[in-house]
Amino acid sequence: MQSLTELEKRARVLEPENEQRLFIWNQTIDYANQFLNELPYRPGFSNGSFEKLEALKIEEAGKPVDALLEALKTEVDATGINSASGRHMGFIPGGGLWASALADMLSDISNKYSGIAFSGPGAVKIETQVIRWLTSVIGYPAQAFGNLTSGGSIANLTAIKAARDHHGINSTNVRKAVIYCGEQTHHSVYKALHVTGLHEAVLRKIALTESFQINTAALKQQMADDKAEGLNPFLVVGSAGTTDTGAVDPLDEMATISSQYNAWFHVDAAYGGFFMLVDEIKNKLKGIERSDSVVLDPHKTLFLPFGSGAVLLREGSVLLSSNSSKASYLIDTDGADDINPSDTGVELTRPNRGLRMWLPLQLHGVAPFRACLEEKLVLIRYFYEQIRKLGFETGPYPDLTVVIFRYPGDADNRINQKLIAAIHADGRVFLSSTVIDGKMWLRCAVVSHRTHLTEIDLALQMIQENIQRIIT
Amino acid sequence: MQSLTELEKRARVLEPENEQRLFIWNQTIDYANQFLNELPYRPGFSNGSFEKLEALKIEEAGKPVDALLEALKTEVDATGINSASGRHMGFIPGGGLWASALADMLSDISNKYSGIAFSGPGAVKIETQVIRWLTSVIGYPAQAFGNLTSGGSIANLTAIKAARDHHGINSTNVRKAVIYCGEQTHHSVYKALHVTGLHEAVLRKIALTESFQINTAALKQQMADDKAEGLNPFLVVGSAGTTDTGAVDPLDEMATISSQYNAWFHVDAAYGGFFMLVDEIKNKLKGIERSDSVVLDPHKTLFLPFGSGAVLLREGSVLLSSNSSKASYLIDTDGADDINPSDTGVELTRPNRGLRMWLPLQLHGVAPFRACLEEKLVLIRYFYEQIRKLGFETGPYPDLTVVIFRYPGDADNRINQKLIAAIHADGRVFLSSTVIDGKMWLRCAVVSHRTHLTEIDLALQMIQENIQRIIT
Repeated sequence: MQSLTELEKRARVLEPENEQRLFIWNQTIDYANQFLNELPYRPGFSNGSFEKLEALKIEEAGKPVDALLEALKTEVDATGINSASGRHMGFIPGGGLWASALADMLSDISNKYSGIAFSGPGAVKIETQVIRWLTSVIGYPAQAFGNLTSGGSIANLTAIKAARDHHGINSTNVRKAVIYCGEQTHHSVYKALHVTGLHEAVLRKIALTESFQINTAALKQQMADDKAEGLNPFLVVGSAGTTDTGAVDPLDEMATISSQYNAWFHVDAAYGGFFMLVDEIKNKLKGIERSDSVVLDPHKTLFLPFGSGAVLLREGSVLLSSNSSKASYLIDTDGADDINPSDTGVELTRPNRGLRMWLPLQLHGVAPFRACLEEKLVLIRYFYEQIRKLGFETGPYPDLTVVIFRYPGDADNRINQKLIAAIHADGRVFLSSTVIDGKMWLRCAVVSHRTHLTEIDLALQMIQENIQRIIT
Repeated sequence: MQSLTELEKRARVLEPENEQRLFIWNQTIDYANQFLNELPYRPGFSNGSFEKLEALKIEEAGKPVDALLEALKTEVDATGINSASGRHMGFIPGGGLWASALADMLSDISNKYSGIAFSGPGAVKIETQVIRWLTSVIGYPAQAFGNLTSGGSIANLTAIKAARDHHGINSTNVRKAVIYCGEQTHHSVYKALHVTGLHEAVLRKIALTESFQINTAALKQQMADDKAEGLNPFLVVGSAGTTDTGAVDPLDEMATISSQYNAWFHVDAAYGGFFMLVDEIKNKLKGIERSDSVVLDPHKTLFLPFGSGAVLLREGSVLLSSNSSKASYLIDTDGADDINPSDTGVELTRPNRGLRMWLPLQLHGVAPFRACLEEKLVLIRYFYEQIRKLGFETGPYPDLTVVIFRYPGDADNRINQKLIAAIHADGRVFLSSTVIDGKMWLRCAVVSHRTHLTEIDLALQMIQENIQRIIT
């Protein structure tokens, strides 16, 4: 082993000094700034090659920052779906609020451990403030609490585990426990069931209505049948905005039915929950406040960068008893604001997640978020009208901000398949597709804070140009 | 609902223009730079007050950035444990490499979705490159693969779920399945057992040797007894660096014993795995390459900011079959480099995690990381010698970079309790404490890349000054 002086000298390479740091910072900011300035003019989807990336092996010696930034620029940031762009209208777009990027940089630099209040008291206070704001958006009572996660998957996992633990589902009774989902329930819910061992329970996929919402008559009947058969209907999963069509389940009715069977009512509102900020939509989401748990994805409709999920429980203490090994003592801290995030979630160490949501909310205030969601609603309704005028068949009038549409007729889906392929090759705006009951649909999902009227008109123009090339 | 033009105008507040962005960027960089320049002189632990934070409610209107940065500076970054500091030698310190802060900022701005290669092909290639480098560090064969997580908790969860699924443990057989841990196995392993329903299995906590390593004779005997009783010894958990004492279990022997019972051998190397980069320690970790799964925490001994875990499986296909709903098709992509991270882990959407590890490794090269780990080993041995010279009792000679020590005698722990309280009140260097078999110990854990000889000498001086005040 080398001498300490020599080792220290070599180790200190990991900590660039003031001047070098500022030099690299400037280059990075220049690159990031250029990316943002060019964003409105960049395509929504591009293919690419990866020679530079493949040449950059992880080796003993370091490499200059400009070569790394160049590879990022051309082979990472300019390839695939441009998720930062307002031209991303496929799947459920992500956001990418610039203020969150600042926040994450600051969080990384001070590197506060936010799992335990003793360690990072200010960081935990920020998380608590964000969680209490989220519960207020949903309309939950004061005893509600939650946990910030990496996304909807871990958030759904945490809620479903809490339901499992609260209802005492275990190996002796799991095969009599029944879980009710809709036919369009998100894949992450099934993943969470698998992780928690609840894939061994009985799964009922409830049929949907013509507007792709859970058929509550069918749900009611199925629960009655199951109960009569001696099964245990214990978990009902509703969606506040399905991924495929943006449909909102009849939450209020589902809450009533769930409570009749004393079942846990979970709402996956990853996509749609933040529309509670918009008065007009609140009524459509009525009943969400009666749920036992809710999942939100701030990287969707709060426009944050990927990596932001949230799980909220109407009874915060249930979250503690499911996750904390010392829950009995912690429940005494009811009302205290310094609940340890490591006691309300499945993670012990994790990034300091509060700041990336707190900083944009504090810097911009809530008003522009609300306006931005209202704008998206107006835009998708405009898209819906226009695409019909262009002669396309559409799915139902949008509950939230997703419209499905297709070239009409086309029994074998050939024209619509050609259309989505042409749109991906075109790339100006990224749209995605789905198949429902054998019928292929194209999807337009307006979620990005950077999608405005210009981008919607471009999408309509792109669709029109491509369908014309195909059918003539 | 307001007119579209008005809504767009109000929504665009979320996207500051070039000039405003540069103004805020400059203030943020100034603050971050000042934080880093002052870091060597700042205490390791501070108490604080939170008036400014509490006054900053989330409201309709936004607030100026300088007020927010001021609250961060005084009430978040300057309170609790200074995790970015080299003076943090409690628990297992986190890192906080500056280059990762750049990387996260860039990831947030381009907001690539890294769950699926189609969406972010370059981002997924970066993750794959990092994962392949990690498997090479561990000495795993070519078919190994892994997943980047938020930390050790989700990484342990993913490995343990893979073991559960691969061994077909379910509600019909879980109560005959046996899991073997050590008395110092990390809490996150138990949390993962709970999440996956394996808390219903039989748990054997194997006694430790005097140097706090798993007693392999006891393990062997217990497994034989269990097998003879008709139980199913299916999972053995080893630690490559326990949190409390930094002890490394006899991994090679444990691998042999596990294979005799066809049990899954999991190694929690969250803290210690990266010492595989140091030739001298490789021998101590021998056997890790024979494990079925390994967990690493790059936010520990690769010095990244919090939020970086990794799970590696010797047979990558087992990770796919545990996590992918379409695994049968994916296994055909063996050897292909574009495996979707959403098919190898429990998360679908999550942050773009590759860049925060890739950028520092590319920018600095591997050599300074290796030197830095070697330096930490030299430093802790120096600390061990010096603290003995000061008259303290110590635990075993350090396997890695943790030393436990205590004021000798002190049967009722009173002096040592006073000492740790005094050290926390002092705050210059943060140390933590633990109780083993009723005996209270202080801990010095040298893991931060910012801990050098100056910081160790300061710790020794602080301990000496405080103990003298207490005993005189």
